[in-house]
Amino acid sequence: MSRSPGRKQENHKISRELFVLTYGALVAQLCKDYEKDEDVNDCLDRMGYSIGVRLIDDFLARSAVKKCRSYSETADMIAQVAFKMYLGVTPSVSCNSATGNEFSLILDKNPLVDFVEELPAERASLCYCNLLCGVIRGALEMVHLAAEVSFLQDRLKGDAVTEIGITFLRKPEDKKHRRN
Amino acid sequence: MSRSPGRKQENHKISRELFVLTYGALVAQLCKDYEKDEDVNDCLDRMGYSIGVRLIDDFLARSAVKKCRSYSETADMIAQVAFKMYLGVTPSVSCNSATGNEFSLILDKNPLVDFVEELPAERASLCYCNLLCGVIRGALEMVHLAAEVSFLQDRLKGDAVTEIGITFLRKPEDKKHRRN
Repeated sequence: MSRSPGRKQENHKISRELFVLTYGALVAQLCKDYEKDEDVNDCLDRMGYSIGVRLIDDFLARSAVKKCRSYSETADMIAQVAFKMYLGVTPSVSCNSATGNEFSLILDKNPLVDFVEELPAERASLCYCNLLCGVIRGALEMVHLAAEVSFLQDRLKGDAVTEIGITFLRKPEDKKHRRN
Repeated sequence: MSRSPGRKQENHKISRELFVLTYGALVAQLCKDYEKDEDVNDCLDRMGYSIGVRLIDDFLARSAVKKCRSYSETADMIAQVAFKMYLGVTPSVSCNSATGNEFSLILDKNPLVDFVEELPAERASLCYCNLLCGVIRGALEMVHLAAEVSFLQDRLKGDAVTEIGITFLRKPEDKKHRRN
């Protein structure tokens, strides 16, 4: 009595709803585990970092992108290729500094919070989507780009948009590398 | 300096890789939180149940399926519509009992374990994907179908396939309902 449907199973996409609810379960569990919002945020960032470190290979293989030649190109790549590929949305990018190493990814709509209305009052400092920051940081580190990544605005906290700030850290050896 | 790409953002699909790695982070966190595999399994099942309870509305709205008239139809619906919609795979279905209330969903390939090679030796009783059982149980309960859902085979544990068993529980009031 076995009914085997036509198999055409290789599909790299899944439903966003299942992901969003599973992510919500993860955040809820961490809120049980840690009293302080900062500890939940740190934990989400660390988890994200580990994910980014693994996801970068998948990204490079599937996107077949060329090496970025500037921080600006890298920020565009994250927004237009990586976010599109992994979350199905494309943030807009803005450059925030004259020195050209600070960028913002601005999301009108954050796909991770579809089922979240607002943060509970006692969790006012929670960066609900902090996993994303860790993912970006981890992935960048694997292509030898150190960066600080954090939420600058968050619609969950009443801001008009959700904004992720990326600051590429210039290392002393940057110049040396360029000479090689 | 704002670059806003063309917006066509309503997309219900996301990358499976991100989901799989995020799910892995969730299981890893629970393994930190609970010493006993059984407790991790229970927790995953409970989390899945809560997800299923919420996901069913999304499923009914998006699938526009008609009411199932038998357990067999329901099992097919889960495999061919729900699994396809949410995980991008279609398990085959087999009926396991003459009484017609026990079914198996058989997955040649489990999309949730893409990055998992094998369970650590000290976690031999872990049902890594137990969230799925909870999701099915929760969703079924919301359409007034009580069921027991559990893994019968698991490729992560060396079995040839991954098999999820669903036993629909006949309630005493079943007959009464049918009469109405």
